[in-house]
Amino acid sequence: MIYITRRERFSAAHKLYRDDWSLEENEATFGKCSNPNWHGHNYELFVTIKGEINPATGFVVDLRTLKEIILKHVVHKIDHRNVNLDVDFMQGKMASTENLAVEIFNQLQAPIEAEGVQLHSIRLQETENNSVEYFGN
Amino acid sequence: MIYITRRERFSAAHKLYRDDWSLEENEATFGKCSNPNWHGHNYELFVTIKGEINPATGFVVDLRTLKEIILKHVVHKIDHRNVNLDVDFMQGKMASTENLAVEIFNQLQAPIEAEGVQLHSIRLQETENNSVEYFGN
Amino acid sequence: MIYITRRERFSAAHKLYRDDWSLEENEATFGKCSNPNWHGHNYELFVTIKGEINPATGFVVDLRTLKEIILKHVVHKIDHRNVNLDVDFMQGKMASTENLAVEIFNQLQAPIEAEGVQLHSIRLQETENNSVEYFGN
Amino acid sequence: MIYITRRERFSAAHKLYRDDWSLEENEATFGKCSNPNWHGHNYELFVTIKGEINPATGFVVDLRTLKEIILKHVVHKIDHRNVNLDVDFMQGKMASTENLAVEIFNQLQAPIEAEGVQLHSIRLQETENNSVEYFGN
Amino acid sequence: MIYITRRERFSAAHKLYRDDWSLEENEATFGKCSNPNWHGHNYELFVTIKGEINPATGFVVDLRTLKEIILKHVVHKIDHRNVNLDVDFMQGKMASTENLAVEIFNQLQAPIEAEGVQLHSIRLQETENNSVEYFGN
Amino acid sequence: MIYITRRERFSAAHKLYRDDWSLEENEATFGKCSNPNWHGHNYELFVTIKGEINPATGFVVDLRTLKEIILKHVVHKIDHRNVNLDVDFMQGKMASTENLAVEIFNQLQAPIEAEGVQLHSIRLQETENNSVEYFGN
Repeated sequence: MIYITRRERFSAAHKLYRDDWSLEENEATFGKCSNPNWHGHNYELFVTIKGEINPATGFVVDLRTLKEIILKHVVHKIDHRNVNLDVDFMQGKMASTENLAVEIFNQLQAPIEAEGVQLHSIRLQETENNSVEYFGN
Repeated sequence: MIYITRRERFSAAHKLYRDDWSLEENEATFGKCSNPNWHGHNYELFVTIKGEINPATGFVVDLRTLKEIILKHVVHKIDHRNVNLDVDFMQGKMASTENLAVEIFNQLQAPIEAEGVQLHSIRLQETENNSVEYFGN
Repeated sequence: MIYITRRERFSAAHKLYRDDWSLEENEATFGKCSNPNWHGHNYELFVTIKGEINPATGFVVDLRTLKEIILKHVVHKIDHRNVNLDVDFMQGKMASTENLAVEIFNQLQAPIEAEGVQLHSIRLQETENNSVEYFGN
Repeated sequence: MIYITRRERFSAAHKLYRDDWSLEENEATFGKCSNPNWHGHNYELFVTIKGEINPATGFVVDLRTLKEIILKHVVHKIDHRNVNLDVDFMQGKMASTENLAVEIFNQLQAPIEAEGVQLHSIRLQETENNSVEYFGN
Repeated sequence: MIYITRRERFSAAHKLYRDDWSLEENEATFGKCSNPNWHGHNYELFVTIKGEINPATGFVVDLRTLKEIILKHVVHKIDHRNVNLDVDFMQGKMASTENLAVEIFNQLQAPIEAEGVQLHSIRLQETENNSVEYFGN
Repeated sequence: MIYITRRERFSAAHKLYRDDWSLEENEATFGKCSNPNWHGHNYELFVTIKGEINPATGFVVDLRTLKEIILKHVVHKIDHRNVNLDVDFMQGKMASTENLAVEIFNQLQAPIEAEGVQLHSIRLQETENNSVEYFGN
């Protein structure tokens, strides 16, 4: 068993804000992340898969295929967009890095497993100081 | 003469969009940066000043002072905000990295020169692939 | 269960030196790290906690709280100080990166668990080539 | 138990190419990595060992020893060389990052264990977007 | 006048070797870079252009255009290839980082100037320790 | 004319402290950098030389020679040492990054010019946020 990690990047706007809370409650809970006019980040996404090495190719999976899956199911939906407003798989969910990592995992698991390998983890880096890692449930 | 560079960071939303153009014209000119619902970045800001070393301290300028100037005049106005909507010094201007670098230079020049040193340049890194540098006019 | 990593940084002096050994024994064992007049590093500290996502906020823990805990219990005690002489929780211990990671874990475990989440690991990067990770015992 | 990671670097040429396949089959499977005239990378190698801290020194293992083992058994054999043609432990194997990580693990396991510590994992970074991690079998 | 820098990357094989010199002369002059079977690098290429900001767009130049010029004239010719054998603009030249930077400058100058901006410099990073910068002659 | 930059690194202790000032004056001027028991950094040193390319080799200067000059005249004197106490060329000077950059320039200028190239600049990075650049006088 060996682990392969592919990095992709996307730049998106978001805010941490509940419409059923007042502006003050939002600011008390989410601080500057609750700015009603949005803010944004350059996210770095690390997708780790695991599997056996194919002795004919030396590959676990073709990285071009893995890249295409990540682009199709995640990056093309979220890059240069608004996480709260534009991303189908985030509708109705708080746009926290935690939730984003979980939902990206859920988006990628089926198409990655269709390639005969397992999705091991999603690591999502929001800033150079903050990141989240999710291994499925 | 010696040059000192201080890095600060901010995360902000923006879009490249002219209200006097159609959606199609905006997309043709600005591509995915024109998404009406915004996107965002982690910007890295490098402020370079130049001056003579004070023999009593070995300093050109107290970096705590330089940091406070950058925070007061730039970072506190733009971090976790929307460049187009929330930032006083960007009102009425395209929120391009070029314009942002020029306006940050203009914000910082007077308070930095009041410390007895010169503002040499602003370098603004929008993504790991794109950056802009401005030396004044 | 999801994992959150917060990075903080500190700059400190230290040496690897046993007073009950001769200068020669110290140098044979610890090499250039035994310089009696100290040397120092920019340490990067990665604190990883784990817990469940709060559905009301999308957070496992408020990162402002996590940051304050790390600053209070570690960074304010060690940043711009001498690990051997100035840091209460390192008294009587070799100032190796290994021991420093273990003692930082011990400093952070109780206050982090008081927030209802678990401390998963401490990763301490001493230089770009050397790092240590500790998961508790 | 504590984990220590040492990074070393090497620059090498390679290609992904099977001599028993046609040029077209190679290109269909390996894409631009199959270029017959080779290409190359700056590889970053992260070797993680684990063990108990020696209370006399605060060390798990002397990092100078660990570095010498990695240089002798891996870096001196592969740095500024051709993975396919020049490296004894890669003879007869596809020069994929996966195989390279496995064979580096196999090269390092015995000499590292002779120091009384365990080899935990090899992480091999081929580009800023692609890396492989192997924990033994 | 403002400066814009675009980074692109390529991975290539090369060697520093003169066919009119003996193996020993080559090794004395070029050291491990003279390995007859090649070695390789992940090169980072920073292309800096300068010009005036277009007030209608806030741009000096469309970065998509700049990227396409760099890909067409440099990256597609050299990425995953052999600098000595496969790259038309390096034929008959030593494949040093210095020469490579000069020839990349020469490749890019005309198509960039055709966009109405000036090519300011080429910076080519061969490893994390070595880089070259060229401003034209 | 082309520019070559070589990076080297060193880890050292220092403090910003004048013995002819009180503890309070030192702390007011130098803040936490005045801690009497020292602190330290991982410094990154970027040495930029300029010259003409030798058509026989494609080199401006042999980087092995440049590296040896930097190691002999700077790194071996300062790495894993105390800037204030152990470094001959810093005796009697404030151990600020500014002064350190100037004195490193002065150490390197003659031996680099003896190789037939010019020393263009010294850039010294003290932390990821602070750096200094000096071009001579």
